[in-house]
Amino acid sequence: MAEASAPTATRVVELAGGVGGAKLAEGLQAVAGAGLTVIVNTADDTERHGLLVCPDHDTVLYTLAKVENEELGWGLAGDSWTAMGALERLGEPGWFRLGDLDLATHIARTERLRRGGRLTEVLGGLQRSLGIAATILPMADEPIRTRVRTADGWLEFQDYFVRLRQAPNVTEVEFAGISHARPTAEVGAAIAAAEVIVIAPSNPIVSIGPILAVPGLTELLAIARGRGTPVVAVSGIIGGKALKGPADRLLASLGHEPTALGVARGYAGLIDAFVLDTVDAALAPAVEALGIRPVVTDSIMTDDASRERLAREVLAAAG
Amino acid sequence: MAEASAPTATRVVELAGGVGGAKLAEGLQAVAGAGLTVIVNTADDTERHGLLVCPDHDTVLYTLAKVENEELGWGLAGDSWTAMGALERLGEPGWFRLGDLDLATHIARTERLRRGGRLTEVLGGLQRSLGIAATILPMADEPIRTRVRTADGWLEFQDYFVRLRQAPNVTEVEFAGISHARPTAEVGAAIAAAEVIVIAPSNPIVSIGPILAVPGLTELLAIARGRGTPVVAVSGIIGGKALKGPADRLLASLGHEPTALGVARGYAGLIDAFVLDTVDAALAPAVEALGIRPVVTDSIMTDDASRERLAREVLAAAG
Repeated sequence: MAEASAPTATRVVELAGGVGGAKLAEGLQAVAGAGLTVIVNTADDTERHGLLVCPDHDTVLYTLAKVENEELGWGLAGDSWTAMGALERLGEPGWFRLGDLDLATHIARTERLRRGGRLTEVLGGLQRSLGIAATILPMADEPIRTRVRTADGWLEFQDYFVRLRQAPNVTEVEFAGISHARPTAEVGAAIAAAEVIVIAPSNPIVSIGPILAVPGLTELLAIARGRGTPVVAVSGIIGGKALKGPADRLLASLGHEPTALGVARGYAGLIDAFVLDTVDAALAPAVEALGIRPVVTDSIMTDDASRERLAREVLAAAG
Repeated sequence: MAEASAPTATRVVELAGGVGGAKLAEGLQAVAGAGLTVIVNTADDTERHGLLVCPDHDTVLYTLAKVENEELGWGLAGDSWTAMGALERLGEPGWFRLGDLDLATHIARTERLRRGGRLTEVLGGLQRSLGIAATILPMADEPIRTRVRTADGWLEFQDYFVRLRQAPNVTEVEFAGISHARPTAEVGAAIAAAEVIVIAPSNPIVSIGPILAVPGLTELLAIARGRGTPVVAVSGIIGGKALKGPADRLLASLGHEPTALGVARGYAGLIDAFVLDTVDAALAPAVEALGIRPVVTDSIMTDDASRERLAREVLAAAG
């Protein structure tokens, strides 16, 4: 499997959103095992039926535990919808689907938080129960919530993302609560100890954006880079389209170029290398002109082998 | 079906615990329809995995909606255990079993209470969603919790009742929080409007006991009786044994006679008539000596027809 001949980093930090971040995380876990720490976006967390749902964390969690539902792109393989149907019959809104297996995660998490646990600790307990090797850290313990402005006013993120299927045009994005947030000690320690820091091919606006917006986070990255730790980002835009989700449309409606180059521009000053798909090879010189080393490769992850291959290429790109 | 020739009361209040109360409630609902108000014990309510579970209310709710699980004696017919298994894998205790359908009730209830709803209102919403004709009222909106004293000290009620299967000897019972509770306006109005008040064949110590212990509740019953509203109790002890649960053992260990007569003695001064099973006919004179009119009948409810028959006999006994 190992194509890269360079020595492999064993302490890797990935900044990640949902599916794209989870796929690359699985590849990185195959390489780095327990040396991988994934720092996940929590700004798309939401309260459903009084339960705290953490979509990005859970996508990474289930993917690293190899129990994810690949067809749906969220939730658990083989889940059932018995409780959801009963909730709807009791008058609860049904547009945000929670399976019976999935509900257990949200119930246990919500209870443990209400008992006073920190989000970082509570999520760590869930990860240990599922027996995954890597560590998944929330970007902060404080609640942060993305809201998007549309022609109909401000919307909660999941209202826009799930209920309205990302149809409205977004003219502004905010991360409510972020000014009160701080990187946790665990996030600080993971970044300080990292040999490589990877920014996943997740949505740069609403997945990576909130992580980088946590006050103090980019400073931690800058300190790590100053000590020689490379930061590599992977483009989630390929051929001008997001592989999944509304990243291309968000970039455009917020005034950015909806291409891999537009993504690279957003990370300029923060990263050392940028992984572009082969279909975007022509953008490499423009990336280089930003002071970022371009790395062109096949970046579409279709199976376990391609996830691990991309992970190794990303780590090699850092070296 | 109607055997009783007396005119049937249309405004009936039943004080009830779990299964026995629910069965009689179903019979009373068949007779009185929307005229039935069941006032249920809430002192065996419990928080499981951060969710408020109301065992007696839910047994009555599911029974009146005809979705109860008759084999188990709790929960819903045809329920599944997917979320419960997942909760156990996440390290949550599994001895209090909650089915997937049942969980929806607890999730919706807990959320609506956290949003500021009164217990009475929140439970009313669940009842309307299930389309039942009768009204089920909690005995109070305030949280009240039964605790029992055993050789190992004080135990939460469900710890004793479910986890320890009622094995420990109980030497004392308390209803924590009851001094802060008051009958709700809905309970007061239902008792004031009742043509008949029925005390169900539920556990007199831990099901009916807490209802009668709500400060002001027995005074409401006394006022209703003073206006001519009869109160009829049904024995849940038949031939010296509880049909279900530990009522006989609790009566004995707390110094009462574990017979229908012992139950009648506990209600002396509160009730006008007492329904005994035919096997306990010999106790009728002793009941009469307490100033209570004994009514001897077959009181075991095996099916819908026998529930309705007993309900009609109980209402006729009041008349």
